[in-house]
Order: sequence, then C-alpha cells, then structure tokens
Amino acid sequence: MYLCRLKKCQRLLTIYVAMERTEISTMGEFGLIRHLTRDMKAVCRSTQKGVGDDAAVLSFGNKRTLVTTDLLLEGIHFNLEYVPLKHLGYKAAVVNFSDIYAMNGTPTQITVALGISKRFSVEQIDELYSGIRLACERYGVDIVGGDTCSSLTGLTISITCIGEAADKDIVYRNGAKLNDLICVSGNLGSAYLGLQLLERERIVLKTNANATPQFEGKEYLLERQLKPEARRDIVEALRKAGIHPTAMMDVSDGLSSELMHICSQSGVGCAIYEDKIPIDYQAAVLAEEMNLNIVTCALNGGEDYELLFTCSIGDYEKLIPLDDVYIIGHITKQEYGTCLIGRNGEELQLKAQGWQAFEK
Amino acid sequence: MYLCRLKKCQRLLTIYVAMERTEISTMGEFGLIRHLTRDMKAVCRSTQKGVGDDAAVLSFGNKRTLVTTDLLLEGIHFNLEYVPLKHLGYKAAVVNFSDIYAMNGTPTQITVALGISKRFSVEQIDELYSGIRLACERYGVDIVGGDTCSSLTGLTISITCIGEAADKDIVYRNGAKLNDLICVSGNLGSAYLGLQLLERERIVLKTNANATPQFEGKEYLLERQLKPEARRDIVEALRKAGIHPTAMMDVSDGLSSELMHICSQSGVGCAIYEDKIPIDYQAAVLAEEMNLNIVTCALNGGEDYELLFTCSIGDYEKLIPLDDVYIIGHITKQEYGTCLIGRNGEELQLKAQGWQAFEK
Repeated sequence: MYLCRLKKCQRLLTIYVAMERTEISTMGEFGLIRHLTRDMKAVCRSTQKGVGDDAAVLSFGNKRTLVTTDLLLEGIHFNLEYVPLKHLGYKAAVVNFSDIYAMNGTPTQITVALGISKRFSVEQIDELYSGIRLACERYGVDIVGGDTCSSLTGLTISITCIGEAADKDIVYRNGAKLNDLICVSGNLGSAYLGLQLLERERIVLKTNANATPQFEGKEYLLERQLKPEARRDIVEALRKAGIHPTAMMDVSDGLSSELMHICSQSGVGCAIYEDKIPIDYQAAVLAEEMNLNIVTCALNGGEDYELLFTCSIGDYEKLIPLDDVYIIGHITKQEYGTCLIGRNGEELQLKAQGWQAFEK
Repeated sequence: MYLCRLKKCQRLLTIYVAMERTEISTMGEFGLIRHLTRDMKAVCRSTQKGVGDDAAVLSFGNKRTLVTTDLLLEGIHFNLEYVPLKHLGYKAAVVNFSDIYAMNGTPTQITVALGISKRFSVEQIDELYSGIRLACERYGVDIVGGDTCSSLTGLTISITCIGEAADKDIVYRNGAKLNDLICVSGNLGSAYLGLQLLERERIVLKTNANATPQFEGKEYLLERQLKPEARRDIVEALRKAGIHPTAMMDVSDGLSSELMHICSQSGVGCAIYEDKIPIDYQAAVLAEEMNLNIVTCALNGGEDYELLFTCSIGDYEKLIPLDDVYIIGHITKQEYGTCLIGRNGEELQLKAQGWQAFEK
C-alpha cells in the first residue's frame, strides 16, 4: 500500500531525511524531463503519443486530439518591467498554439490557470486576460476553463492547449529521413535580440531615469520578442502546396536544440549551412552594435516560434514558390552528427545551448 | 491592429500608467473568474461546454473529451514543512481526477507542468513525481506531457487532466430539479481538521523542537488531508445501481460553496439538514478538542473531494443500498434560497465561506 501507512505518521513532521542530493542544474531541463518520464508506459487506449513531442496525441474519435502545456513564471520567463501585461497574455496563448501547429494540427481550446500575487489589481489581470482573449479570437480558439488563485510572489501563468488533427496529417519529430531537406520559416534570432535590446534599455533607464529608450529602427525586434505569432500561415501554405513534412517542430529553445531533437528522435544526422540561416536586417545590425555573433543568436537564441521542418527532396519544386520558407540544409546519416557548415566550408558540430532553464 | 503599434514603443518602458486599481480580494476567486470570462462565446464546433463546471466538455468524436486544470503553489496550497513530496504529487493528480469523476467521466491523461526552485534536488522532484505516477497507476491514467522550468521561489505544480465520457453520461452542475434528493459521499470536514491538526503540531514543534507530534487516534484525518482519493467507486456504484445524477460536483471548496454553485446554475434552492451531514468520529473529537464547530468545518472546510450530487426522488430505493452515500436534503424552489435546517428545526441561509483564495 501507498505511502504513509499511518502508523508511521508520527514521522511526518520530520521530513527530508538525509537524502542524496543531485542538483537539477546538472541535468538541464530536457535531462530532467527524460529522467522523470523514463519507463513510462501508456495504459489508456486513447493515448497515442505521450511525452516527447510538441504535443501529446490522443485518440478519442476519428480525429486526433492534441494536448500541450506551458508554464510561465514571473522573473524567469518574463520581466514586467518591460513586458506589458496584454502582450504577455497574448504571447502566453500564442506559444501554445505554436506547439499545436508544429504538429500540423489546429488549436481549438485552452485552459488558463493563473497564480496572482496581491501586487496585481483586477484591472491588471484584465489587461493580461484581454491579451489571451485577443490571441484566442485571432486564432479561433476557445477558453474553456482554468483556475485562479493567489500566489505569494509574482505572477504564474499555466496554459494548456487542446487541438485537433486527422491522424494522417500529424507530423512528429521522429520522421526525418536521409536526404530530406531541412527548412525554417521566417527568420531566427530576432526575438532574442529584441530581448537583449529591452534589457539594455532597462539598465540605461535604471542609471538615468530621464533617458529615452533607443528603439528607433528596431521596432521589429521588439515585436518579435513581445508579440510573437504562431505560423498558422506556413502550416496552411504547406498543406495547399501538397507538402507533408516528414518531421516538424517550433523553434522555441533555439535552432540547434530543435535540430538535435529532430535528429536524435529520427535517428539521423544533419548538415545546415551558416549562410542559409535566414536573418533579419535589424537583427544583424543590432548584433553588430551589441558585439554579439548573429549566427550564435540565430542558433541558440530561442523564442522565435518559427517552424522547423524536414520534407522529402521530391518536394523541392513545391517548396521554392512558398513565401517565407527557407531551405537551410539536409538530413544526413546519424554518424555525421548535427553539423553546421560555415561560410568557408568548415564543419562544426552543433551544441544545444538553447535556453537552459536550470543553468546555475 | 493589436497592441503596441510599435511607433509607440518608446512608451513601453514607462509602464503601469495611472490605472484604476480594484483589489482582487474584493471579488473573490469565483467573482474574478466570472469577471474574466464574461461574454465569452465559443467559436470552435468542438467546444460543447466551456468555463463553469468541474471540467470543460469537448466533442471530437462519438465520445466527449473532458478537460480540467489545477494550479498548486507552495505557501498557498501546500506547506512542505508537513506535506511529504510524494503525498503532494499524489494529491495534485487525484484532485484533478476528482474533477473528471464529478462530471461522471473517466480520467485518461494528464499533463504536468512544474516550476522548481534551486532549493529542490532531483531526488526531491523524483519523490514528487513518484506520487504523481502512483496516482496515475492506481487510476489508470497516462502522463502525456508537461513542462519543467526553474522558479525563483518555491514549487509550482500545474496539472491538466483529460478524461472521456459518452455524451449521455455527462453530469453537469446545472441539472438539479425541484424535489431532487441531495446526496454526498463519505464524510465532510475531515480534510480540514487534518490540516488544523498538522498546523497545530507544526506550531508546537516550532516552540519546542523536542515535542512529539500528537497524532494518535487521528490518523484518518491526516490521511484525508494528505492523501485524498477521488471517488471513482461512487461513480461506478451509481452507474451499477442505474442512478443517473441530475447534477454533480466534487467538494473541493466546501459543501456550502458547492451547493450554492449547483443551486444558482440549476436555478433552484435547497434545504439540507444539519443532522444528516455525514461526519467522521475522529473529526468530531478533534473539533471538540480544538473548540471548532464541526458543522462549520463540514460546511466550509473544503478539500474533502467527496461527491455532491442530486438525483430524482424516484431513485430513492436504488440509493438506500449504496455504501457510503448519504441523503442530506432536497432541492427546493429558488425563492427558498440555500437553506440549512438545524437540529432544532431552525432555518439558516448558507453562505459560501469556502476557501477564499483572495482573502486579505
């Protein structure tokens, strides 16, 4: 029988007996998730795919139900010194939609759980919620439930998104095949640079309250950081063009990290070309200004919410006419590793430096 | 267009302009939820029932999909000074299952999002997760996804539970009819008294580290607080007996509060009898010892996770043989209010003093 056979309850208050102690930072976020979900076997008939993709896949009827969840914590994922609450709500919803699109599905419902400290007024929570509602309106999603409670410190936002897809349409991370093309939408690194910009101006303002933030000519970067959109348009364009990606995910942690997920889950390697990675002009200028390597920003910055996908080389002709889709490399044998080919032809192994949630 | 037309971005860092400020405590949890979700209209065909019941009801196939979510925050919902992590994980999962059973459904999957501060080691998170997994094993539920991130302070647990039910089986809160019987399972107030006991002993230990916690003869109350179970057995027994409740919910905030939900959503009133409310012997003894009114504990204590339901008076004969189900009153006309009839026949209007998440 479970736990506390209550004869032993006297011991309840003497908690945390000498236990081995492994710091979570030694595992990293993905390591911890793998560790916690090891040996997990599905028991429900309706569970088609559990942990390990952008969303879980459930099968309740003819169509498949997709489920994904995200937790956002103040001070970790957002800083209210420069993130307006309405933007925050919008982004919190959209990043979940992005996970559903990354499965080639359509988001349909969300639940919203909020932990709110006394610092916040009803009007502020209204602002936050109005952003969530606006995102839902724009993407045709319903808010169907939630939970609201007080918190001791800061704001906690937990959103779970439900979506749907026909079984045959769902794209997992594990379907990339040798010689497939690797593509991304939009451009990479802009959201990260938007964050650097906001941080820089925050520090300037701290030392000189009369300073005017220097955002001119960099508005696009702020928009990418503060108000990202999910690439529904790309998913629709691929469908229209008759392209069925072999693997797909959204770029939330960074291109390197996501490529490594696809390669390890598909049992393949990859080669991407530095000069093919799409980069926005404003991002390149700011990186120069801030003495950052723009390619590193694009590879490891994260929060771009662009789609990364692979497709058969036979789809090449169909890909070319698509707006805002870029071929950046191809799938190789696993032995080749996950490789970046530099402007001068040099080969570098990619590292997943993505956003390390548990870094010390 | 939405938000920050970025010309105005210079203003981004000058946040929180003079805004009206309404304290959330003036609304309470339910008031806030009603406020935030006002005028919400479903746009997805698959949304059958949104906010306002124990779970949302979605329709993706022949069967219905149920969704519910709960957010647990350290210092608000649990105190790790006396809640072992494995118990906490078990309870966090079970309270979600309880919401699905309260719809007369079967929980099938959960997602688990954890926010973890540096204070916690991998071994501790393992403990927590082992409780979640054990609950899942016992109730036949799969963990299909989640999110794990660091938090600045304390532990955050957000669980979303998916369940299924045939459309005709689902029981909402709004179906109670005039003259229906009002029933509860198990007993009420025990979980609350378990909490009072733990709090009392915590304070004793604080002032005298050598004291031995006085739990003898009160183990059941601790179990009710630390390791509640969802009443799957009752849902199954009702089905077997051929009883289809007209309204149902689980008792998480307290009997008064839940009765008022059922009555207001069904457009009816109720009369319950003080001497019919099932109370455990240990709970009664401890209430006496601590100078608490046991009926108040039963009405407003919360966290019992028993089922409260109404059913047709025609089901009376089928109800009687059921184990651990008690008839406590009946549904009246709305004008009658939600009424408690005392031991001497006096009538009191119930107040929802349930767990007020936003009390000052």
